[in-house]
Amino acid sequence: MPYTAPVSEFKFLLAHVVDFAQVTATQQFEGAAADVTDAILTEIGRLCDEVIAPLNRAGDLHPARIENGVVRTSPGFSEGYRAIAEGGWIGLSAAETYGGMGLPLTLNTALNDMMSGACLSLQLCPLLSQGQIEALSHHASDDIKALYLPKLISGEWTGTMNLTEPQAGSDVGAVQSKAQDNGDGTFAITGQKIYITWGDHDVAENVCHLVLARLPEAPAGTKGLSLFLVPKRLPDTDGKPGVLNGVSVVSLEHKLGLHGSPTCVMQYDGATGWLIGPPQGGMAAMFTMMNNARLGVGVQGVGIAEAAMQHALAYAAERKQGRTPTGETSILGHADVRRMLTAMQADLFAARSISLACAVAIDMQTATEASHWEARAAFLTPIAKAFGTDVGIAAANDGVQVFGGMGVIEETGAAQFSRDVRVTAIYEGTNGIQAMDLVSRKLSDGGEAAFGLIKEIEDTTRAARDVFPHEAEALWNAAQTLREATEWMLSQEDLNDRFAGAVPFLRGFARVLGGLFHLRSALAAPKTARSALMRVYIWRLLPEISGLLAQAQIGGADLYDLDFGLQSA
Amino acid sequence: MPYTAPVSEFKFLLAHVVDFAQVTATQQFEGAAADVTDAILTEIGRLCDEVIAPLNRAGDLHPARIENGVVRTSPGFSEGYRAIAEGGWIGLSAAETYGGMGLPLTLNTALNDMMSGACLSLQLCPLLSQGQIEALSHHASDDIKALYLPKLISGEWTGTMNLTEPQAGSDVGAVQSKAQDNGDGTFAITGQKIYITWGDHDVAENVCHLVLARLPEAPAGTKGLSLFLVPKRLPDTDGKPGVLNGVSVVSLEHKLGLHGSPTCVMQYDGATGWLIGPPQGGMAAMFTMMNNARLGVGVQGVGIAEAAMQHALAYAAERKQGRTPTGETSILGHADVRRMLTAMQADLFAARSISLACAVAIDMQTATEASHWEARAAFLTPIAKAFGTDVGIAAANDGVQVFGGMGVIEETGAAQFSRDVRVTAIYEGTNGIQAMDLVSRKLSDGGEAAFGLIKEIEDTTRAARDVFPHEAEALWNAAQTLREATEWMLSQEDLNDRFAGAVPFLRGFARVLGGLFHLRSALAAPKTARSALMRVYIWRLLPEISGLLAQAQIGGADLYDLDFGLQSA
Repeated sequence: MPYTAPVSEFKFLLAHVVDFAQVTATQQFEGAAADVTDAILTEIGRLCDEVIAPLNRAGDLHPARIENGVVRTSPGFSEGYRAIAEGGWIGLSAAETYGGMGLPLTLNTALNDMMSGACLSLQLCPLLSQGQIEALSHHASDDIKALYLPKLISGEWTGTMNLTEPQAGSDVGAVQSKAQDNGDGTFAITGQKIYITWGDHDVAENVCHLVLARLPEAPAGTKGLSLFLVPKRLPDTDGKPGVLNGVSVVSLEHKLGLHGSPTCVMQYDGATGWLIGPPQGGMAAMFTMMNNARLGVGVQGVGIAEAAMQHALAYAAERKQGRTPTGETSILGHADVRRMLTAMQADLFAARSISLACAVAIDMQTATEASHWEARAAFLTPIAKAFGTDVGIAAANDGVQVFGGMGVIEETGAAQFSRDVRVTAIYEGTNGIQAMDLVSRKLSDGGEAAFGLIKEIEDTTRAARDVFPHEAEALWNAAQTLREATEWMLSQEDLNDRFAGAVPFLRGFARVLGGLFHLRSALAAPKTARSALMRVYIWRLLPEISGLLAQAQIGGADLYDLDFGLQSA
Repeated sequence: MPYTAPVSEFKFLLAHVVDFAQVTATQQFEGAAADVTDAILTEIGRLCDEVIAPLNRAGDLHPARIENGVVRTSPGFSEGYRAIAEGGWIGLSAAETYGGMGLPLTLNTALNDMMSGACLSLQLCPLLSQGQIEALSHHASDDIKALYLPKLISGEWTGTMNLTEPQAGSDVGAVQSKAQDNGDGTFAITGQKIYITWGDHDVAENVCHLVLARLPEAPAGTKGLSLFLVPKRLPDTDGKPGVLNGVSVVSLEHKLGLHGSPTCVMQYDGATGWLIGPPQGGMAAMFTMMNNARLGVGVQGVGIAEAAMQHALAYAAERKQGRTPTGETSILGHADVRRMLTAMQADLFAARSISLACAVAIDMQTATEASHWEARAAFLTPIAKAFGTDVGIAAANDGVQVFGGMGVIEETGAAQFSRDVRVTAIYEGTNGIQAMDLVSRKLSDGGEAAFGLIKEIEDTTRAARDVFPHEAEALWNAAQTLREATEWMLSQEDLNDRFAGAVPFLRGFARVLGGLFHLRSALAAPKTARSALMRVYIWRLLPEISGLLAQAQIGGADLYDLDFGLQSA
C-alpha cells in the first residue's frame, strides 16, 4: 500500500482555497508562477513517491544506532537524504544569494507535508536544516552566512537545534550550559543537551549545532541566554570540515516512534562556537528558528494524516467482511467505516488548508512587510501547529481502527503512523503551550487578528448563501459562537483563566476556520465530492465547537478545587 | 512510580454509586457482605500492588517468544500467574461446586480492573479462563464440567477463545475450520486460527481451546458453526494432562503493545475435540463467553486509565518547569496540566461506574432472573466495553502529553500504556460493532432499557436539585437531549441510518450516564473533592454531547455521497 503524494490536492488548494495568487503577484515571488509551481509540486511528488516513501518501514525496523561513538542511520536513509539535497529541496525557500531557490514558504510547506507523509523520520533532518538556515539568515554575521549557508542549503552539512536540558524543557530559561569567551572571536561551550533530533548521523559530512548557553554573569532566565553555532567538525581554511570539535553524542533515546530519526544526548566539553546575534540575544534568534519550525511541525501532522488516511482507505477498499447495506463487497460499504474515513479526509483538508493559509500569510509578510500579514501569520502559527498535529494523531488512531485487528500488528504499518506522529503534539512547544501562546500573546493586539479571521468567515458565508444556504448558515452561527468566545478571552484579566480554556479555544477556533476553507473549496467545486466533504465537515465535525467553546469559557477556578488526593478520600 | 490499586475507590463506588447492597441482599450473593467484600478488595489490591504491577515493564521489554515450538513467557509471568491462581481469583465468580468462590461478578469486575491496571498482558490470561469457565458452565455436559471446571478454576489449566481466521474477523460467519465426527464421542478439528490470545504458554500445565468450526454439511454463515473444546494435552484416565493433541502454535504476532501476552497463530490438524452445546449451537455458546468478556475488556480500558492517570499525576507532582500562577513548584500548578489530569480522573470515574453498574445488573439478573435486569445488563454491556476502552485510550494519550518529551521515551512507561490499551477498542468486537449492537439489538425492546436509564438520570437530578441546582439542571437538560436522540434512533426504519450515528450515540449515552454517577457520588460526599470532580465533569466534559448527539442523528446518506476519489478529482 504505497504512499501517493497529493500533488493535485495542493494545486487545487493553492488555486481555489488559500489564494496563493496574491503571493505570486508580489515582486518578491513573481518567479513562482503557476507553471513553475505545478512543475515543482509534481517533482516533489515524484521524489516522495519513488525515493522517500519506500524508506519508511526500514526506518522503523532498523533504528538509528551508535557505532564507535558515531550515529549510523537506517538502511537507505543516506541515499534518500542525498536525493532531497541534490534536488535542491532543502533550500527551496532560502535566498538565491546562497544557493537557495528563493521560492515561497507556501511551496516549502507543501514539500514538508509530502515528505512527512512519505517518511517522517527522514524528513526531520532537512526540516531542522531549514530552521537553521532561517535563523542564520536573520541573525548571523556576513562571514558566518557566507561560510555556512551554502553548505546547509546544498545539504552538504545539516543543522540542529539544541535547547533542551533535563531541567529545561518547556522552561527554556532554566538552561545551564555555559559559554566562555575565548578572546579570539570564538567561545567555549560546555554542557549537556537532550532530545537533539538528528544530533549526529552519517548522511552528510558535517553537523552544525545551534546551542543555547549562558555567558558568564548573564542574568537568570531566558534573558540571559545567548545562541552559538557549534559545528561537529571545525571548518578548515578552505571551508572544508576539519578537525573534530569538542562535541559528542552520548546516547540515543529509545522512543515510541520515529526510530529512524536519531534523538541524541549531546555533550559539549569546551566545544568551539560562534556567537549568533548579540550576547543575551539567544531567545530572539531562537524564536526565528522556532516560529517557522512550528508551522513545519504542524505540517508533519498533516502529512501523517494523509498517509494514514490513504493507507486505511486502501485497506478498507480491499478488505471483505460481513454483508454491507449497499452491496459493496469491501468494508467501505459499512457506514461506520465510512464515518471514520470521511472524518479523516475532512479533518485532513481543514488542517492542510490552515497550514497553507499560515504559510501564505508568512509569504505576504515577507513580500510586503505589512503588519497585518505579520499578525495573521503569528495568530495562525500556533493553530497550524496544534491542530495539524492533533489531526495527525486522530487520523493515525482512526487508521488503526479501520484496520481492525490488523491495526495493532506492526507488519501492516498502521501502528507506525500512530507511534511516529505522537511526539509532534509535544516537540517544538507542546500543544498546550501553543494554545497558551494563542490566548495571551496572540490576543495582545486586542483581538484584531482573531476578529479579522472571523470577519473573513462571515464574508465567505455571505458569499455562499445562495449555493449552500444551510451550510453557510451553520458556519455563520459557528462564527458568532467563536466571536463570543474570543471576546470572553479578551475580557479575562487573570491570564490563568484564559490558560484554563486555551486548548479547547484553539481547537474550537481551528474547527471554525476549517469550515471556512471547506466552504471555499465547495464553492470552487460545487456538485463534486468536495461539496460532499464540506457537508460532512459542517454537519459532523463543526458541531464539536459547542462543547469546546463552552469549556473554553469556564476559567480556571474549578481546576484548582481538586487536590488530586481522591484515592485516600 | 508504582501502581496503587484503588481499593478505597471501589469501596466508595459499591457503597454509594452503584448500589451493590441490592446484590448482597439477594439470597444468591448473601455471602458477599460488606466485611467480606472489603477484605477481598483489600487482598486483591495487595496482590496487584506487590506481585502483578512489578511485572508490567518486563512484559513489555521481554516479549513472549517461541522456543522449540512452545511459547516462553516474559520474566516473572509464571510466578505472577501462580499468585493469581493460588489466591483463588480466577474462580472468584465461579460456582462453588467446582471450587469457585461463587461471589458476585461485580467483585470480579473490580478484580479485573485492578489486575489490568497492574499488568494488562498478564491479566489477559485469567480473563480468558473466566470466559471459558462461563461458557462451559452454561453449555457443557456434566462430564466435561466435572473434568475441566475444577482445573480451570484452580488455574492448573487455562482457557482460550478461537474464533478468528484470516478471512473471518468481525464476520465470524466466514469461519472455515472443519470438524469431523470420530464416532467415539470426539471430533477431529482442522483449520487455522489467528489472534489467539495466550494460545500457548508455560505458566500452566495445559491450555484448553474453545474452537468454532463447521461440521460436514453445516449451513453457511454463523448458523452452521459449532463449538469444540480442544485441549493442548489430552487428559488421561486420571484427568492429568497426557499426550499432546494435534494442535500447535505456528507463530506469534509482533504487536504494538501487550508484548507480554502471546498472540498466537494456531494450527489444528485433526485435533481431538469435544462438542460443547448442540451441533450448530456454536454461536449461542460463544455469545455467553463473549458477553461477559465484553465487560471484561471495557474494564481493561478503565484499569489502564487508572494506571496512566496515577503515573502522570505522580510525574506532574515531581516535575518542576516554569513559574505557575499558584506558586506551586511542580507543573501541577499549570492550568492546562490540571485540565488534562482532571479530565482523566473524571472520565475514569464515569467509565468505572458504568462498568460496575453493568456488573451489578448482571448479578441481579443472575440472582433474580428478572427480565428488566437482563435488558439493563444487555444495554449497558456495549457501552461499558466501548466507553471504557475509549477512556483508557484517551487517558493513556493524555498521560503521554502530561509527560511532555519524556512521554515518548519508552523508559518512562507512559507510552507503554498507550500501546497496550490500543487493541482494547478492537478486540472482543470493535467499538464500532458495539455501537451497532447498541442501536439495533439493544433498542429492539422499543427503547425500554434506554428510557429506564434516562428516567433514572432524571430522578437523580430531581433528588439533587437542592444541593447542586445548576449541575442538576445541566444534567436534566442533557437527559432530554439524550431522550430525543434515542427517539430519533428508534424512529429510523433503515438500520443503516442508525449505524451511521451509532458511535457518537454510544459516546453521548455514556457521557450522560457518567453524569448520573458523578452526581450520585457528589450527593454522597458533598463539599469534598468528589463534588469538585463532578463539577469538572458536568461543565467540561458533558457539553460534548451536543456535538455527539447532533452527529448521531444525521443518518447515513451523506457518508455515501463520497466516492473517496478526491485525489484524482
